[in-house]
Amino acid sequence: MSARTFVQTGRKIVAIGRNFSEHAKELGNAVPMSPFFFLKPTSSYVVSPGKIEIPQGCVVHHEVELGVVIGKTGRNISAADASEYIAGYALALDLTARNLQDEAKKKGLPWSAAKGFDTFTPVGPFIPASEIADPHKVRLWIEVAGQIKQNGTTDAMVFQIPQLIEHVSRIMTLEEGDLLLTGTPKGVGPVQPGERVVAGLEYQGKELSRIEFDAVARN
Amino acid sequence: MSARTFVQTGRKIVAIGRNFSEHAKELGNAVPMSPFFFLKPTSSYVVSPGKIEIPQGCVVHHEVELGVVIGKTGRNISAADASEYIAGYALALDLTARNLQDEAKKKGLPWSAAKGFDTFTPVGPFIPASEIADPHKVRLWIEVAGQIKQNGTTDAMVFQIPQLIEHVSRIMTLEEGDLLLTGTPKGVGPVQPGERVVAGLEYQGKELSRIEFDAVARN
Ligand SMILES: [Mg+2]
Ligand SMILES: [Mg+2]
Ligand SMILES: [Mg+2]
Repeated sequence: MSARTFVQTGRKIVAIGRNFSEHAKELGNAVPMSPFFFLKPTSSYVVSPGKIEIPQGCVVHHEVELGVVIGKTGRNISAADASEYIAGYALALDLTARNLQDEAKKKGLPWSAAKGFDTFTPVGPFIPASEIADPHKVRLWIEVAGQIKQNGTTDAMVFQIPQLIEHVSRIMTLEEGDLLLTGTPKGVGPVQPGERVVAGLEYQGKELSRIEFDAVARN
Repeated sequence: MSARTFVQTGRKIVAIGRNFSEHAKELGNAVPMSPFFFLKPTSSYVVSPGKIEIPQGCVVHHEVELGVVIGKTGRNISAADASEYIAGYALALDLTARNLQDEAKKKGLPWSAAKGFDTFTPVGPFIPASEIADPHKVRLWIEVAGQIKQNGTTDAMVFQIPQLIEHVSRIMTLEEGDLLLTGTPKGVGPVQPGERVVAGLEYQGKELSRIEFDAVARN
């Protein structure tokens, strides 16, 4: 087991919602007063280059996010100690069946299906923590069918990574290889079968990760 | 990896909601027209005999359930083929911070925190599928502080196990060691620090599993 192999060995994906205020607003949501999260199954991982599957009847939205890969087990981790638990990072997409999510929200039902289809967590390779001295100065962008859709920096997070780790680990133990998705900047929108999705992660003007996926219809 | 070691090696817990109509009604919910589910993290497992931790400020309810342990990887599994994917069973509790869940439902937020605290999935040992020829004839009971609270049989499920496997696997691939929690009979209620929780699983009048936990305050 190692944080490097998080896609194969990790046991959970914890995804933060509405952690960029401009994104919360674009979906008509209030900016949260405290962090909240949902779980995605590890069966939703797909590595780059690969295929994103669009299930029939689903309006699938892209959300480009910074993933934090946990390096050691901890619970009740204080924000002050959080950096010791970070092994590295990964560029990730938190794909979402937006129509199913909207329905679930209206009915007070779980988000798990809307967020959990196979291939709904496309990821790039592990980036060691040493390559990103300040994870709140990362640029994330995504292009769909040749058009830039999201392009933001992690300094706009409502709750910063140490606070997120503190919040989550007061509820559930974080383990080596777990992935924490830290929320998406504004500009989310649909991905359709036949479209190509390319995303990048930059730090200090240098591209540390680029991922590429082809969207296809799920069978 | 083996289904027998699902607590140590399994990568997800998929839990079905409102699958017993009397339970749906006791919480003021409609009986669902199609199955729905949420995810619990594998970090919430605790094996019997053990301790259930009650977080401060949480009204924690017991839900005794039949767990189905998946034996091989599959997706788009038809109900007709579902039994091939079942390695065995386990007696389990789906502990729930009911006050947090009620708040999440009202706000259209995920159930993940309400369902995902450490120790919120107490389980008993693996029971090979061969010991339960018909999983819809299982009796489940739970006692809290010496009083019987739930006592029901799995023939009352709204959606039977093959349909549940078909439904979930159309969304997410099921993998060896995954646990499917199949819903709880009526009679859910609070568990408080200092109380002892004992539950049992019977098949054809024979007790196949008994689990025991002491509830303590979480620190
Ligand atoms: Mg959920
Ligand atoms: Mg997201
Ligand atoms: Mg339940």
